[in-house]
Amino acid sequence: MQYSLILSRPGSATEEEAVGLVNMSITNVHSLNVRKAPLPECLAKALEVLLGNRATTSAAVREQHGRGEGGFSPVPPDIVCFPNSNEEVAAIVRLCAEHTTPVIPFGTGTSLEGHVLAPRGGVCIDLSRMDNILEINSDDLDCRVQAGVTRKQLNDHIRDSGLFFPVDPGADASLGGMAATRASGTNAVRYGTMREAVLGLTVVMADGRLVRTGGRARKSASGYDLTRLLVGSEGTLGVITEVQLRLFGIPEAISAAVCQFETLEGAVNTVIQTIQLGVPVARIELLDEVQLEACIIYSRLQGYERKPTLFFEFHGSENGVAEQAETVGELSRDNGGGEFRWAVRQEDRNALWQARHDAYFAACALRPGRRGISSDVCVPISRLPECIMESRSDIDESGLVAPIVGHVGDGNFHVLFVIDPDDPEETRRAQQVNERMVHRALAMGGTCTGEHGIGIGKMDFLVAEHGEAVGLMRTIKLALDPHNIMNPDKILRV
Amino acid sequence: MQYSLILSRPGSATEEEAVGLVNMSITNVHSLNVRKAPLPECLAKALEVLLGNRATTSAAVREQHGRGEGGFSPVPPDIVCFPNSNEEVAAIVRLCAEHTTPVIPFGTGTSLEGHVLAPRGGVCIDLSRMDNILEINSDDLDCRVQAGVTRKQLNDHIRDSGLFFPVDPGADASLGGMAATRASGTNAVRYGTMREAVLGLTVVMADGRLVRTGGRARKSASGYDLTRLLVGSEGTLGVITEVQLRLFGIPEAISAAVCQFETLEGAVNTVIQTIQLGVPVARIELLDEVQLEACIIYSRLQGYERKPTLFFEFHGSENGVAEQAETVGELSRDNGGGEFRWAVRQEDRNALWQARHDAYFAACALRPGRRGISSDVCVPISRLPECIMESRSDIDESGLVAPIVGHVGDGNFHVLFVIDPDDPEETRRAQQVNERMVHRALAMGGTCTGEHGIGIGKMDFLVAEHGEAVGLMRTIKLALDPHNIMNPDKILRV
Repeated sequence: MQYSLILSRPGSATEEEAVGLVNMSITNVHSLNVRKAPLPECLAKALEVLLGNRATTSAAVREQHGRGEGGFSPVPPDIVCFPNSNEEVAAIVRLCAEHTTPVIPFGTGTSLEGHVLAPRGGVCIDLSRMDNILEINSDDLDCRVQAGVTRKQLNDHIRDSGLFFPVDPGADASLGGMAATRASGTNAVRYGTMREAVLGLTVVMADGRLVRTGGRARKSASGYDLTRLLVGSEGTLGVITEVQLRLFGIPEAISAAVCQFETLEGAVNTVIQTIQLGVPVARIELLDEVQLEACIIYSRLQGYERKPTLFFEFHGSENGVAEQAETVGELSRDNGGGEFRWAVRQEDRNALWQARHDAYFAACALRPGRRGISSDVCVPISRLPECIMESRSDIDESGLVAPIVGHVGDGNFHVLFVIDPDDPEETRRAQQVNERMVHRALAMGGTCTGEHGIGIGKMDFLVAEHGEAVGLMRTIKLALDPHNIMNPDKILRV
Repeated sequence: MQYSLILSRPGSATEEEAVGLVNMSITNVHSLNVRKAPLPECLAKALEVLLGNRATTSAAVREQHGRGEGGFSPVPPDIVCFPNSNEEVAAIVRLCAEHTTPVIPFGTGTSLEGHVLAPRGGVCIDLSRMDNILEINSDDLDCRVQAGVTRKQLNDHIRDSGLFFPVDPGADASLGGMAATRASGTNAVRYGTMREAVLGLTVVMADGRLVRTGGRARKSASGYDLTRLLVGSEGTLGVITEVQLRLFGIPEAISAAVCQFETLEGAVNTVIQTIQLGVPVARIELLDEVQLEACIIYSRLQGYERKPTLFFEFHGSENGVAEQAETVGELSRDNGGGEFRWAVRQEDRNALWQARHDAYFAACALRPGRRGISSDVCVPISRLPECIMESRSDIDESGLVAPIVGHVGDGNFHVLFVIDPDDPEETRRAQQVNERMVHRALAMGGTCTGEHGIGIGKMDFLVAEHGEAVGLMRTIKLALDPHNIMNPDKILRV
């Protein structure tokens, strides 16, 4: 399907050029044709006056900022800015608003759905220099950071105070970017996602206004929940410049374990029963046999077999962790699981979770030179076995290389399609499997994206999922960004 | 301060009458003058055709629907409708939209900030007949109910399946109303508020469109979080007709305990240390000595002294509960707490929590014939002792009768001012104490309302709390409800 978005910029029609965006993603958007206007020279000048050499049109920098980690070919912005402060971000957005020029926020470039691509060109705002940790309130278990602080940076900073920030999408993403995409990851089953973790935001709106939302109270019934509206808005409503976050005390005891299963179904059923029993497991991750083999090779895991496998982590008191482990151990045995292999020392746990986080790279290494593209459905947990089994069967029939990994405690799993982007037939097969999987998930009451976001690649799925509610989203978008300058062509067509 | 809101309704100016709303609430809005237009006769007719005798202009029914439980004098709507279905609600709103007539949703009338008052008249939509439990998904720990289902009705219905719905604001409120006000209550410290409990909504928007938001997946990164935007919107953006909710398994073990303290500070410090240690306490409620004495009298509590007191409830495995109780017991002793008095049997626990829930009525009974008006600030927990102590000291200086109760695990507490509404000087003193308390809470990073909402009474506090962000809220309100028919004069002045 092709579609066309025309920027209505008075007087600039003659300067426009059509941009065809080749979408390698295995979504149902194959090509995006939009009109791209050149960057107004006076805007470039004004940005240089404002930022000096922190505004650059260098081809290498633009290229680097025109791509994330997904399956999209790069589409660079016209200029990249590196602001140091809220006020500089506001000034940049005000200048862009004057010229009706697109604004594309950039954190670490680790998003997967083309969020940082600039199909209409425009001004990329790289927030990496805004990396100050502004306050740590240990007694209240919260903190405020600039948007460019990464999750590892924050965790390194607070470790000695006995605190940690749990949301862990794998990549060492910026916390502003994680808020913007409503990220989650391996700890969400116990600690929630960025939806729950963010207490408040500082945001630059489309007209350059600097707005603070939320606050430090644990709960509030004070007006519309702008914080939650902005979390997950992917830069299309405003540029997040600061984030107030919940923190947690490092548990007294942490232990991790691996359990291998005879069948994928046995592994998934163990997960379901664990959740249904209300065991407060911190992490419960599935790797199917294809993925486990990839990890054995890539991460040199010793002593594991090519079998469906669960990675667990338990947090709590010494007794609490022992009790959780015992309960889950029984469930595993009942479902054909083998012995638990424990990793109690921090370095062993780190090695285990590094292997899990490297699953994507391990999968890609199965076919060197190919590209890995991740699906991201999430379903009510009782439907998980059916959803995973039918997807596995579709994959096997398709002949594709596509391991499955998942944050299965939340009902969320990823098929990592390892495909040759130059082989249109292979891409088409992957698309077919993915589309069937998304529609299967939606029919089960699930969502087309548990944690990666809509970006440029899933706009049709958004409509399939939310129907009439997408009209509401569009009304809100146009009310807050009437000229569609904030990360246009992401989430919604306006 | 007085202000005036004029409904711009073309052609109806001559029919308008000014309505002065006497606000008994101890907020800083003393009087609300708006223009009230009579109900168009053809609208009344159309509603009767649609609903038969389920649309009534009976004075008694209107009067009953014109007041909540707060300190406001009743302001009845012009007509009260009792729809049976989503489609009927949509039809009512469409008719109101045609006539630019206000729509005021009504659940059980237990809100405290004048949410159901009709200062411009209009059509009250009473959702009490929409009381069907539509689905219970035990395996996925979720359910879908019509908006008129109350929390006790839901809990009675699911008890035998081993599940419960934790959000408990005291009143047996409707779940639609609880979603609309972002309610919470005694269990929020462990299970969260309606913000966390609501997975999705069915809502009738200002133009009569029926929209479904959210879904059944535990997490999603799929577009704007309309669910969270609508939770807490107090009927000003749409009428909630169905709610998809999270459920929890009834814990293996539950036990409740009461501990009395020598000082208020000792009690509050016990709370703080419990939260900071990450003890997963289910309920931790403070009653100061004035409140405890009121409860001893009203609820005939045996064997308690007039002292600051904490009510606890622990949920978990047998061992987990014992461990939590032991930890909290140690903290209590360190802070001057006496022995724990246990309530393990369900009937004993029920009696205890009934006494807690009746705190408001117990407070009112301290001065028969007077009215109880509740404040509702919430602060970061480290600031709680200071905030409570300074407030207690203000109350003592004012000579008012005003016990303190609180969901202190969240940093949320209520001063229950028991005042004579006919004594303007007493009302003024209560207002002064409350305003100082709200501004103190805001200066501490807190909120003017933890769980009661803004309603008609706290609009100035909303501005003091959120500043520039209120402009964003207004933009969203006007985008979704351009003619300001959805529960006008609540949350925002537009």
